[in-house]
Amino acid sequence: MHRPHIVILGAGYGGIVTALNLQKKLNANEAQITLVNKEDYHYQAAWLHENAAGSLHHDQLRIPIRDIINEKKINFILDKVVSIKPEEKKIKLEDQTITYDILIIALGFESEMPENHGLEENAFFIGDINSARLIREHLEYNFACYHNEDVKNNGRLNIVIGGGGPTGVEFAGELVDRIPEICKEYDVEKALVRIIMLESEATILPAVDESLQQYATNSLASRGVEIITGATIKECNADTITYEKDGILEVIPTVTKIWTAGVRANSLVIKSGLQTKDGKVAVTGEMKAPDFQDIFVVGDCANVIDQKSGKAFNPTAQITVQQAALVAYNVVAMIKGNKLKTFEPRIKGMVVCLGSHDGIGQIFNKRKLFGWKAPLAKRLVDTQYLLKLGGLSLALKKGKFKFLNS
Amino acid sequence: MHRPHIVILGAGYGGIVTALNLQKKLNANEAQITLVNKEDYHYQAAWLHENAAGSLHHDQLRIPIRDIINEKKINFILDKVVSIKPEEKKIKLEDQTITYDILIIALGFESEMPENHGLEENAFFIGDINSARLIREHLEYNFACYHNEDVKNNGRLNIVIGGGGPTGVEFAGELVDRIPEICKEYDVEKALVRIIMLESEATILPAVDESLQQYATNSLASRGVEIITGATIKECNADTITYEKDGILEVIPTVTKIWTAGVRANSLVIKSGLQTKDGKVAVTGEMKAPDFQDIFVVGDCANVIDQKSGKAFNPTAQITVQQAALVAYNVVAMIKGNKLKTFEPRIKGMVVCLGSHDGIGQIFNKRKLFGWKAPLAKRLVDTQYLLKLGGLSLALKKGKFKFLNS
Repeated sequence: MHRPHIVILGAGYGGIVTALNLQKKLNANEAQITLVNKEDYHYQAAWLHENAAGSLHHDQLRIPIRDIINEKKINFILDKVVSIKPEEKKIKLEDQTITYDILIIALGFESEMPENHGLEENAFFIGDINSARLIREHLEYNFACYHNEDVKNNGRLNIVIGGGGPTGVEFAGELVDRIPEICKEYDVEKALVRIIMLESEATILPAVDESLQQYATNSLASRGVEIITGATIKECNADTITYEKDGILEVIPTVTKIWTAGVRANSLVIKSGLQTKDGKVAVTGEMKAPDFQDIFVVGDCANVIDQKSGKAFNPTAQITVQQAALVAYNVVAMIKGNKLKTFEPRIKGMVVCLGSHDGIGQIFNKRKLFGWKAPLAKRLVDTQYLLKLGGLSLALKKGKFKFLNS
Repeated sequence: MHRPHIVILGAGYGGIVTALNLQKKLNANEAQITLVNKEDYHYQAAWLHENAAGSLHHDQLRIPIRDIINEKKINFILDKVVSIKPEEKKIKLEDQTITYDILIIALGFESEMPENHGLEENAFFIGDINSARLIREHLEYNFACYHNEDVKNNGRLNIVIGGGGPTGVEFAGELVDRIPEICKEYDVEKALVRIIMLESEATILPAVDESLQQYATNSLASRGVEIITGATIKECNADTITYEKDGILEVIPTVTKIWTAGVRANSLVIKSGLQTKDGKVAVTGEMKAPDFQDIFVVGDCANVIDQKSGKAFNPTAQITVQQAALVAYNVVAMIKGNKLKTFEPRIKGMVVCLGSHDGIGQIFNKRKLFGWKAPLAKRLVDTQYLLKLGGLSLALKKGKFKFLNS
């Protein structure tokens, strides 16, 4: 094989970890590496809800790509992918077209909202730095507007979270912490503010253990979050959201609807013509696209079946980072003519924070975690990630050590 | 005279200084003093444009009223004035009606926009803490929106200031300082942002000396402010503003229009039936309302004729504070049966800041001031005011010593 051109699309958890692993394992004579991303920074998506609530500044969760890659080994292109052409081995970007020998698709997720309900036009989504920051600004702007109207619009102070999964729950937990600060800043009476969570299932966090569900429900409810389960969103417009529960329609006046209930893979994947399942590339155990020996997929764009449960893995940051390490290993193996490995996740556990002082978690799928240890655990995992990404200096710079001074 | 009830309406520069002077000069046996204000704080209106630009936090310019009055001497009522009834000696508030023996009207200004041009619905106004803070939030919100739209709306980045008087010019100066910070926060290219000032006269700051006008024009223009003189606003809607210059109509796409070109006295004054001139109470030299021996008026609500020029004084903070001291003196004189004094201003000078490092001014109407000394002079005057209001501790707490660390 000549000096192959490896192209990585996307610099989220999957893309950046693949890139950094390849940078370590290959020297410049062995391969040419290109990383394409539409922003010049990597960001830690697991913290976006804190940015959206306004409790963590976005600069704390984004990392300039050029600070962590070695530009002698990786050519970084700041551009947006327009289309992937597997047959031609070409990637069309907005400003140029590039070819590859080996491709890694790590293009992440986008929001998936029920169609024709007005959600796409009127609801926010915690998707990236731009959209999270917009939620923070939208909240503050509406609190600021409140005092400047003769007829008070309480819809400006009602925040409706669509979905009680991990993202919705973590966002609600942050909001509870943050609302008193916003109220102080804009001279709004705290008692006027409502946080309402609409969940279609019978409980929030349906995927976790029942005792954890109960703990999270009590923690949020005791701090004022109105949790409405069994609620289906029926209509959303600029000033209201309507849901159905037990056959009865209810209307909530609100200018702030945040959809947290569903994501799908970047739709470029379906448009590429690669074989998909549930909108994701139905990858092999080696994380390759079916029928294409030269395409790997990681993270939200990959449908990886758990051999034990027969179900697809939830592409958490944890799983994605492990996939990225495997993909890097397999790419190097391919180039060097070695045997490829199959993906086997090592689930270390999960944590759902409920603000900065409370949360739930499960370690090694056995021991349960309640209370202040959960946010601490999340911060430890984060620090580990930053250490891997950019060493001690990056960990010190971007570490989220809120527990030190809070 | 029995122990008279003195009622002060408003706690702006005029009201709070009157109250504090009376508190010092009268003991509790001599008079009962009531101060009515719709907010529980006094604020320094001369700094609002910095709050609107986002360069000075509103907490730096507001002072809790209860921190500076002696509640044993002054009864503070947090309420909004609904109407003044001079014949009945009654003040209707939202929650109660009070009577007075001596009344001091210090209700400040409100915006005066050309009617039927869409300005009232679509333009902002730097009027108080709430409206200034709203401008800051509106700016930030629109910068945050910019990246979240497929079709970029440059109107979100165009800021149009209606009026090139002192407020408009000071606001533009602050914006020039502030825009780079906002751009950094929201990842917006600075070159995309426009600050446009529309002035109907042939020059900005028409009331000041020509050399000062020229200096201010050059300072703002060299830092990117587009100054359009001889421009009359014709129409304003949510997304544009239209002006006429030399018979030609021009349309600027902008969601941010800030009207700084005109104020009038609080309209409660006209509704009170007191004799007015230009919407203000045509006060006597002693600052009394005509035909009412028991009503004094200070600041924006008073029309005071300068005996030298025959024109009304511009109710700057400087003039208002002096009027308030005189009104307090006259109220005490009335109670004690002494002779009342006539208002004679001592003009110490004027300063117009052009951001935190530049400005113009005139001291004692003789020596001119250019450059960094102007903002310094404003801060010195501010410190003096705070010292008078609440001594060293207030001056240290609320002093705007930006020059120390900038």
